[in-house]
Amino acid sequence: MIEDRICGINAVAALFARRPADVKRLFYAEAMKERAGPLCSEMARLHRPYRMLDDADLLKAAGTSHHGGLVAVAEPRRFDIIDFVRPPRMKFLIVLDGVSNPHNLGAIARSAAFFGADGLLFHETPLQAMPSDAAYRTAEGGLEHLELHRTRNLRKALIALDPFYRTVAATLTPDAVPFQSLPRDRPVALVLGNEERGVSYDGREGCRRKVRIVGAGAVQSLNVAQAAAVLLAGLTGPIG
Amino acid sequence: MIEDRICGINAVAALFARRPADVKRLFYAEAMKERAGPLCSEMARLHRPYRMLDDADLLKAAGTSHHGGLVAVAEPRRFDIIDFVRPPRMKFLIVLDGVSNPHNLGAIARSAAFFGADGLLFHETPLQAMPSDAAYRTAEGGLEHLELHRTRNLRKALIALDPFYRTVAATLTPDAVPFQSLPRDRPVALVLGNEERGVSYDGREGCRRKVRIVGAGAVQSLNVAQAAAVLLAGLTGPIG
Repeated sequence: MIEDRICGINAVAALFARRPADVKRLFYAEAMKERAGPLCSEMARLHRPYRMLDDADLLKAAGTSHHGGLVAVAEPRRFDIIDFVRPPRMKFLIVLDGVSNPHNLGAIARSAAFFGADGLLFHETPLQAMPSDAAYRTAEGGLEHLELHRTRNLRKALIALDPFYRTVAATLTPDAVPFQSLPRDRPVALVLGNEERGVSYDGREGCRRKVRIVGAGAVQSLNVAQAAAVLLAGLTGPIG
Repeated sequence: MIEDRICGINAVAALFARRPADVKRLFYAEAMKERAGPLCSEMARLHRPYRMLDDADLLKAAGTSHHGGLVAVAEPRRFDIIDFVRPPRMKFLIVLDGVSNPHNLGAIARSAAFFGADGLLFHETPLQAMPSDAAYRTAEGGLEHLELHRTRNLRKALIALDPFYRTVAATLTPDAVPFQSLPRDRPVALVLGNEERGVSYDGREGCRRKVRIVGAGAVQSLNVAQAAAVLLAGLTGPIG
């Protein structure tokens, strides 16, 4: 049975804040006893098991040494398959089109939540990382604050989003315009691509606009998680 | 003896472009034969060894499976200890004050080179990651494009930089101003801190200004590598 294993105080606190009924078991190290206290009370209220573990058992429960002394086992997040007739409406949607590294996924989710984006749409391909223990940990709670949607047909999804969003692909191609020139008059669906290959053909073709981040030339590109942060800052915030 | 092991086409190409005389040995996988060709010619010219290796030997030479089929062994990068009387002069200097994760160091170097920053100043403490195989790989050549400086006394270094730079600490403290309000009239020395603890006391006290990135509130902070990218975009580029 598939379960989410969510580690670290920020990710676990966000889990309890956003979907407490999904938490099935809670484990903590002695050093985290005090901080785990309110979460244990919540677990007692929900009649769910919680327990202090020694280092060896906590490592086993977490499946990683990067657990920060706190591990929650939870029902997996529910994803909505995108409805082509009534697509989700929000102010800022990030479309993940082949982002393969779970740490990049986590970092993008953290930045997205930080800058107030509303959701992630996963293009379900073998390339695309889906939420995992590493992604939850890196997101520091960010994934819990975002609506999660998925699609197997990105082209159709982008056509469905088009009436309600400015569809924008982040690319390195010469026809891409600096993101600062993007009009800021409509909700944005921002497509981010694979670490090596960039946005897929369907992703590029399905978007009305292509944007790029202008650099100084010493290295060719930013890592996708850094590009996401810059574009989020530029397109959601007061700058851009 | 300490040597840099630099992996992946972008990092190795930057190494050859910036300090070919430092390359001591070059190894490549059969799949990278063609791309390694010009580098092998350069090695022949320098009378240095180069060789195609099978997967097992390349893994051994690289010390990681993330070698992208190309490994260069090089003299370690030279660091200048910062001169408090004649500090280095540049347009944009990033001061690393406890950035512990080598992937964050690499990502910051990549973003710094991308946006045209000139150098990194490492605060030599046990917290601070120094260039490593993982950092070189993540930097995708970015570290080769940056001057590297180091200091054991950050407070003194910042005082030495003060006449020539706007010294700025990136913090989450309430007295920090949104980075967009920073005057853009002088070179910048931007201090970035530890992933958990932020900028050190000496880093904060040594800077004239503190800046922050304003978010929407769902999560408390950005990862330092994402914060670096946003601040670089905002303070070097047309935005900000």
